Amino acid sequence: MTATVAVPAEPIGTLSDAWRECVGTGRLNLALRHDYVESLKRVQREIGFKHLRGHGLLSDDVGIHRPYEHGGERRVRHAFTYADQIFDSWLELGIRPFVELGFMPSGLASGDQTVFWWKGNVTPPADEREWVDLVTGVVRHLIDRYGIDEVRTWPIEVWNEPNLTHFWQGADQAAYHRLYEITSSAIKDVDASLQVGGPAISPGSDEWWGPFADFVERSGSPVDFVSRHAYTSGPSQHVPFGVYQTLARPETLLEQFDAPRRHLEGTALAGLPTHITEFNTSYRPDSPVHDTAYNATYLAPVLASGGDFADSFSYWTFCDVFEEENIPTSIFHGGFGLLGHRQLAKPTYHLYTFMARLGAEILARGADHLVTRHADGRLAILAWQPVDGTDAGAASHSLRLALPVAGPAASVHRLRVSETDGNAWNAWRDLGRPHHPTSRQLDLLHEASRPTVEQRAARAAGGILNLDLTLSQHEVTIVEIDPVRDETEAWIDDARIPGYAQTAGVR
Amino acid sequence: MTATVAVPAEPIGTLSDAWRECVGTGRLNLALRHDYVESLKRVQREIGFKHLRGHGLLSDDVGIHRPYEHGGERRVRHAFTYADQIFDSWLELGIRPFVELGFMPSGLASGDQTVFWWKGNVTPPADEREWVDLVTGVVRHLIDRYGIDEVRTWPIEVWNEPNLTHFWQGADQAAYHRLYEITSSAIKDVDASLQVGGPAISPGSDEWWGPFADFVERSGSPVDFVSRHAYTSGPSQHVPFGVYQTLARPETLLEQFDAPRRHLEGTALAGLPTHITEFNTSYRPDSPVHDTAYNATYLAPVLASGGDFADSFSYWTFCDVFEEENIPTSIFHGGFGLLGHRQLAKPTYHLYTFMARLGAEILARGADHLVTRHADGRLAILAWQPVDGTDAGAASHSLRLALPVAGPAASVHRLRVSETDGNAWNAWRDLGRPHHPTSRQLDLLHEASRPTVEQRAARAAGGILNLDLTLSQHEVTIVEIDPVRDETEAWIDDARIPGYAQTAGVR
Amino acid sequence: MTATVAVPAEPIGTLSDAWRECVGTGRLNLALRHDYVESLKRVQREIGFKHLRGHGLLSDDVGIHRPYEHGGERRVRHAFTYADQIFDSWLELGIRPFVELGFMPSGLASGDQTVFWWKGNVTPPADEREWVDLVTGVVRHLIDRYGIDEVRTWPIEVWNEPNLTHFWQGADQAAYHRLYEITSSAIKDVDASLQVGGPAISPGSDEWWGPFADFVERSGSPVDFVSRHAYTSGPSQHVPFGVYQTLARPETLLEQFDAPRRHLEGTALAGLPTHITEFNTSYRPDSPVHDTAYNATYLAPVLASGGDFADSFSYWTFCDVFEEENIPTSIFHGGFGLLGHRQLAKPTYHLYTFMARLGAEILARGADHLVTRHADGRLAILAWQPVDGTDAGAASHSLRLALPVAGPAASVHRLRVSETDGNAWNAWRDLGRPHHPTSRQLDLLHEASRPTVEQRAARAAGGILNLDLTLSQHEVTIVEIDPVRDETEAWIDDARIPGYAQTAGVR
Amino acid sequence: MTATVAVPAEPIGTLSDAWRECVGTGRLNLALRHDYVESLKRVQREIGFKHLRGHGLLSDDVGIHRPYEHGGERRVRHAFTYADQIFDSWLELGIRPFVELGFMPSGLASGDQTVFWWKGNVTPPADEREWVDLVTGVVRHLIDRYGIDEVRTWPIEVWNEPNLTHFWQGADQAAYHRLYEITSSAIKDVDASLQVGGPAISPGSDEWWGPFADFVERSGSPVDFVSRHAYTSGPSQHVPFGVYQTLARPETLLEQFDAPRRHLEGTALAGLPTHITEFNTSYRPDSPVHDTAYNATYLAPVLASGGDFADSFSYWTFCDVFEEENIPTSIFHGGFGLLGHRQLAKPTYHLYTFMARLGAEILARGADHLVTRHADGRLAILAWQPVDGTDAGAASHSLRLALPVAGPAASVHRLRVSETDGNAWNAWRDLGRPHHPTSRQLDLLHEASRPTVEQRAARAAGGILNLDLTLSQHEVTIVEIDPVRDETEAWIDDARIPGYAQTAGVR
Repeated sequence: MTATVAVPAEPIGTLSDAWRECVGTGRLNLALRHDYVESLKRVQREIGFKHLRGHGLLSDDVGIHRPYEHGGERRVRHAFTYADQIFDSWLELGIRPFVELGFMPSGLASGDQTVFWWKGNVTPPADEREWVDLVTGVVRHLIDRYGIDEVRTWPIEVWNEPNLTHFWQGADQAAYHRLYEITSSAIKDVDASLQVGGPAISPGSDEWWGPFADFVERSGSPVDFVSRHAYTSGPSQHVPFGVYQTLARPETLLEQFDAPRRHLEGTALAGLPTHITEFNTSYRPDSPVHDTAYNATYLAPVLASGGDFADSFSYWTFCDVFEEENIPTSIFHGGFGLLGHRQLAKPTYHLYTFMARLGAEILARGADHLVTRHADGRLAILAWQPVDGTDAGAASHSLRLALPVAGPAASVHRLRVSETDGNAWNAWRDLGRPHHPTSRQLDLLHEASRPTVEQRAARAAGGILNLDLTLSQHEVTIVEIDPVRDETEAWIDDARIPGYAQTAGVR
Repeated sequence: MTATVAVPAEPIGTLSDAWRECVGTGRLNLALRHDYVESLKRVQREIGFKHLRGHGLLSDDVGIHRPYEHGGERRVRHAFTYADQIFDSWLELGIRPFVELGFMPSGLASGDQTVFWWKGNVTPPADEREWVDLVTGVVRHLIDRYGIDEVRTWPIEVWNEPNLTHFWQGADQAAYHRLYEITSSAIKDVDASLQVGGPAISPGSDEWWGPFADFVERSGSPVDFVSRHAYTSGPSQHVPFGVYQTLARPETLLEQFDAPRRHLEGTALAGLPTHITEFNTSYRPDSPVHDTAYNATYLAPVLASGGDFADSFSYWTFCDVFEEENIPTSIFHGGFGLLGHRQLAKPTYHLYTFMARLGAEILARGADHLVTRHADGRLAILAWQPVDGTDAGAASHSLRLALPVAGPAASVHRLRVSETDGNAWNAWRDLGRPHHPTSRQLDLLHEASRPTVEQRAARAAGGILNLDLTLSQHEVTIVEIDPVRDETEAWIDDARIPGYAQTAGVR
Repeated sequence: MTATVAVPAEPIGTLSDAWRECVGTGRLNLALRHDYVESLKRVQREIGFKHLRGHGLLSDDVGIHRPYEHGGERRVRHAFTYADQIFDSWLELGIRPFVELGFMPSGLASGDQTVFWWKGNVTPPADEREWVDLVTGVVRHLIDRYGIDEVRTWPIEVWNEPNLTHFWQGADQAAYHRLYEITSSAIKDVDASLQVGGPAISPGSDEWWGPFADFVERSGSPVDFVSRHAYTSGPSQHVPFGVYQTLARPETLLEQFDAPRRHLEGTALAGLPTHITEFNTSYRPDSPVHDTAYNATYLAPVLASGGDFADSFSYWTFCDVFEEENIPTSIFHGGFGLLGHRQLAKPTYHLYTFMARLGAEILARGADHLVTRHADGRLAILAWQPVDGTDAGAASHSLRLALPVAGPAASVHRLRVSETDGNAWNAWRDLGRPHHPTSRQLDLLHEASRPTVEQRAARAAGGILNLDLTLSQHEVTIVEIDPVRDETEAWIDDARIPGYAQTAGVR
Repeated sequence: MTATVAVPAEPIGTLSDAWRECVGTGRLNLALRHDYVESLKRVQREIGFKHLRGHGLLSDDVGIHRPYEHGGERRVRHAFTYADQIFDSWLELGIRPFVELGFMPSGLASGDQTVFWWKGNVTPPADEREWVDLVTGVVRHLIDRYGIDEVRTWPIEVWNEPNLTHFWQGADQAAYHRLYEITSSAIKDVDASLQVGGPAISPGSDEWWGPFADFVERSGSPVDFVSRHAYTSGPSQHVPFGVYQTLARPETLLEQFDAPRRHLEGTALAGLPTHITEFNTSYRPDSPVHDTAYNATYLAPVLASGGDFADSFSYWTFCDVFEEENIPTSIFHGGFGLLGHRQLAKPTYHLYTFMARLGAEILARGADHLVTRHADGRLAILAWQPVDGTDAGAASHSLRLALPVAGPAASVHRLRVSETDGNAWNAWRDLGRPHHPTSRQLDLLHEASRPTVEQRAARAAGGILNLDLTLSQHEVTIVEIDPVRDETEAWIDDARIPGYAQTAGVR
């Protein structure tokens, strides 16, 4: 039997925007894609993230660093043809860059090592002066084009996961510190009010915090925020075009969010804003868990509480337009995206749209629920089946909330996503997992991807509305309780409508 | 226990387009409204009617007949400022006029009698010559603007319900026959290939068929089609801003569709196309039944079979932009529309969108189902709870179909509309029947108006797929059976995804 | 020879937004029209007015005041079905109501007198209590729906031109004062921060100011602003479907703008904001001058200086969706609109789009020019051929400006509207004045309605750029001077492009 | 003095659609870009090409050929994730693929040689069987998805410019013939009604025709059409990020169009359709002539006559989304596009929109004009300043046409593009050639890119309207002569409008 949670009428806290401060994206060149722009439009209309962060701003396919010869000597042009198109379109859609400075333009690289199918160069600059010129040129151009008031709100992060050998040649800590030093100084030399930070390290590398804090203090390098990544998947078991992986408990994500604060306590960096500039269950773009309802129900408590541990945590990534492991060979392929190709919504997308419907006041929070209230008095409750990263959970999950409401009548409006509701991946399995769905199949998938809606009336007694919720397997649900003012006139009698003689039976 | 219907693999007939040949509209002036145009866009995108018929083309608020003085004499200008805007926009949205010639411009009327809040004049022309000039002028202008090949596809109907005293002064049959005679001749004088017809009579007036046939034969008047209306509601019991009414059995609608054929047998008009230029349950624009799921389930068998009895039957009307009984004072008000104000979909709207998803081949048809097949082999089944116009029907209704399918696997995709699914009116009752829903409430209503989607996989055996359907109260549902080609690779094993260890349990 | 105007580098004033604070509209029911909404979209995108004012909020065709019987007694419902649609759409398009309270609902009217083809009732309320309830109900509903912070920014004006017998029965001053008293009190009783004003008098009625001031002071009625109208056309000489009229000098418009200040000096109303809630050349909706370039060049100095005399002056009206003198019988018909039917831009529309491109700093203003500067340093100059309301003006008009610019190089970008540029009305005359242009002709008219664009480079010397402008007959032009930073590289040599060997000759 | 061209009333020929049968595009991966899709939308709305041809369908960045390991053996998946997105979007925009089979997927290549910045592999297949499987797989998939009736209308061309060593390793003719043989057979094995052709050779390689004809005859390979390219630019003189080149006379383009017919006369390939699958002035994507008005006036006679020599001639390319010589570093950079980045129209774009406004009947054609008539009787005349590829032409060019018209009155509607009209490149030079125009500068450029419109009335005498045209330097113009039916009423007198007293002077 389920115990009743008595939800207090006074807020116990505020739901910060940390969950939507930032979201991840495939490499910046992909921001030129049509499917990407359409996906971002939908995401911004229905969720509304604040910042967008991805790799490759400085890589060759954005085309900024452009050496050439003239008059017998080598020169470098900084070209912003694509960078302008990208940032113009982001700002037009109401989202700002969280700038990641990387990877190395091949014309400035000291080596040939690359990462990913799309070959991002991960070696230090061959010439520090030219790197500093590049950073300076980029930042100056952004300020020229968008204004300092705007660019001041764009955090700038130096490199990505330098603690891993495949992202930074040799995972060379000293070389990273040197890169950080010259880069952060170059930025502040342009304008001291710009925000710069790092070290953007991957999970399992907390041993980098101490040296980073020491180095920064010693070198006097500016730091406005610290950043790291968080993932909970185990090693990859490869199959063609994909991997299988295990997951740790969802709480370990929150522990990772919290790690910078713990590790920087007592250092000069204590108290700085913490940005989790990437997080997800799996760190692989071909891990099927991303497409499932399980992913949503697993992450629900993380989104509900993450703001207690970090200033932002950026889901990696908002859409499946992504090519780190080559071009996907199937519409569902375990990609990171909240949206799949062709803007097909996955369950975790809906978890985010549900978050966007919550109120700012937190009335209660538990292992399977987050009760919020809007300024206009209506309640919005996120609930989910708790899972631990391994077993499937029960076939259903129940909870009972005693909710404080103003009047006697309320509308109860519920949206459901589960194994059987709002689940395009399941519909795709029903259709035989077509790699390349036909136009007809795409229509079915889009229709199947919409959350199920349930609407009913409810009555409160003594200022309390008892809400009994039964969740299906792997369900994430939002329940909205709107107070109702009854405008039914005295002469209204539905029993006089044909077919409604026994109104009670009908409703 | 429900008996199984064995659906044959060979078609027993073809589903004609009679059900979407035409739909009704509020008076033509309203076609200038924004909500109307947006509603028509939606209707055409999701249903795709062929023709649109409404009153008032010749009424003052379309502004065609424009007498003026010049040089001391009375002249008449025919002005098409609004008529052009109206028909331009219809054609742009892929729908053609079903022209109704009426009512009388006040500058040409012989009397003051008007109908409706908007005061359509229902008296004969004061001057037959000027009427003939008007008809001729209108038809010539249409041909000038749109071309004879286009206008030839627009049926032209003479007046509306002349058998009722409030639509035609005195319900004067002889005067109507005279109007028909001079009007039909005027039209054919412009171009003999134009289609003209009448008498557009209301239910309960079958005694007009004989005289009309006699008159036409005697006078040699041209007739290309005959038309009448069909409704099944009883007398109005008035309450403020609305009425309550009873309904006859749905079969009586089909009997009304069939009446012209029966009554014209043996006359010169036998065999002409029959157009039911208006039909619905209630003939009142303020009868709440229109907003209900009951309306949809009641009409489902009529849409499924109507094409056997008439060449078209035109639902009155496609949207609630309508003012015959003054401006509605509440978003739900018992209006005729498939769509309410602000394009809010009612259950009967979805009945039509379900019809638009059916295939052309009929495999089976019964009291609660219509099984069709598309050219590509997939099945589309419309099912409904049978009701008789009085009682509510049972709390649920079951049927079982044994369906012929090609392969062993299929996707079963179902959309449901019922008392609890896709039912904006019910949601509105839950919200306390707000006359003027807030922006927030409109969002809830739109969300609640979407049919519930269910998707699952199914297996066939021996070429037969057994489909068990349980319908909720007042449900209309469409089930689409798509053959599935399984592309699952040998290495795919969902049990290796976290949370899916017991796949069978999950699905 | 033209003297050179030496434009100073320091601003002599600020260009207020008075010119776009408000614009007029046809009766509020027409705001439900599709052409209207599309026109408003265009107007807001290219001009961006702040408020919109029109007649008929309380008239029957908006449907607010709805008496009915129940339980044997008369009651009144306030219905906002259309009012909500109207104001929702305005706010969505970024424009706010300037509320005019009028005319009288027929169910509340004390008499039968109406104004216009659409029959607005202009008699006092039959029951003051019911009128006060109506005003209170409307204001309360607006606040409920849009919030007090929003509605506080909507000025509320009591009635329209009560000094004219056709707008207010008998032009009864005492009755107007009484209406003002009970209406303004009712509004303030709802919320004291709402803005209320009047008396919305027509030109030639300045004798109303004294009594209004006296009455207000005596009665203690609240007044937040005063309002009047301004027109310069003479008596109508009627022809079928139109009139011809003379015009007074344009300065008389400014004199009318200034009249309230002059007449209220020394009264209790001195210093209140003045709103010119209607102005135009002609006060007739069928006076061809509205469609001409002459109208634009005549009004240019009025827009350039009007802000010195009034807090707003509202062009009557933004589009030709308008029916006071019946439905227009031709696409051009002398309508008030900045845009004609089907969003066809008239010359005066472009005058307004040119105004919207001016900077906030005024550097110089003269009889034929207004020189402004934007915050980013670029100049925007409005110039026009001065006319006096009678003669045609010369075939051309020249002016020379010595402009202060920052660097040596500038781009000179000019848009022209004149008898031969951006002039749909002239193109329509070329096409034989078709009443109902075909689709092909509409395309030509739209193309002909676009201002002519001229672009060139210019050089400054000693911080001065000499701009010689020659205007065609009835021209209004905007010239934008953007400082240019030359990025031409050393190796660029256009003479090496085929066809550009003699670059000098080409440019 | 200019002689008058007497234009006959009877057509001398028909303007075929050869000029818009096909247009070129950057590599197919770029069809996924947003700017590309927006550009294609505009091009299709205003021009309406029938087919679209570009490189790289089989290259790695479209991701079709996907080898993998399973069960210890090498397999190949054909993945259409991107191909489907590309072709779905083309068909949605009303344009069909002209399929070019190339280049070699790296997983199937026999060597490492690549072409372009984006590294298309140009070596023969390492395994003919796998290549045939790939071709077969692609064609089968297209038919599965789009239907054979659709795909039958898509010509399929084998490879690109195999006669050049940088497009086909060693320019190995025998290897190309072998590739053609196995590819064309594979296609016809899927469906014999598909169209296949080649050899897609570059200018200056007519010596390939004989061997190709011989080979095809000898081998019995299917050929449904022959194809080649045509360009008139001389050698590149390099500067940073660009080249300068000379041009041959425009007639040499027509000679190139005609070459296949001449060279194949008497062979088995005589009489086959000829497709010029690429043409332009310069073959370089960084040659500034593409951006100029000179390019348009130079190509005008080629478009006017090209249909006499070839069944299609495909402008290379429709937009500047193109990366063969790395990412453009400036908005104008000499790219091939009709549209520049951000859909900025170049003069040659307008030449094409002018072509799209011509009628089907050719009445006259000369060195500087093409006179056509539409089915509805209106005339559309393309005129241009003739140039020879070297000198600039005179400052102006005049011609006089005596045109046959039906009635006494006509509207003369003219659109102009020249050095000073509709010329974004010139405006960009005025602005100092900004590499990365600001939002403000982009607005100016778009405004400056619109053709100048001139509209006037004209009178004919004796069925002849004399049209005197004076063209500016490098002008291309379209003049549309619409017959006018005068609807001016007797009472209309513009002299009664203020400012129009001397109407004659005004017009």
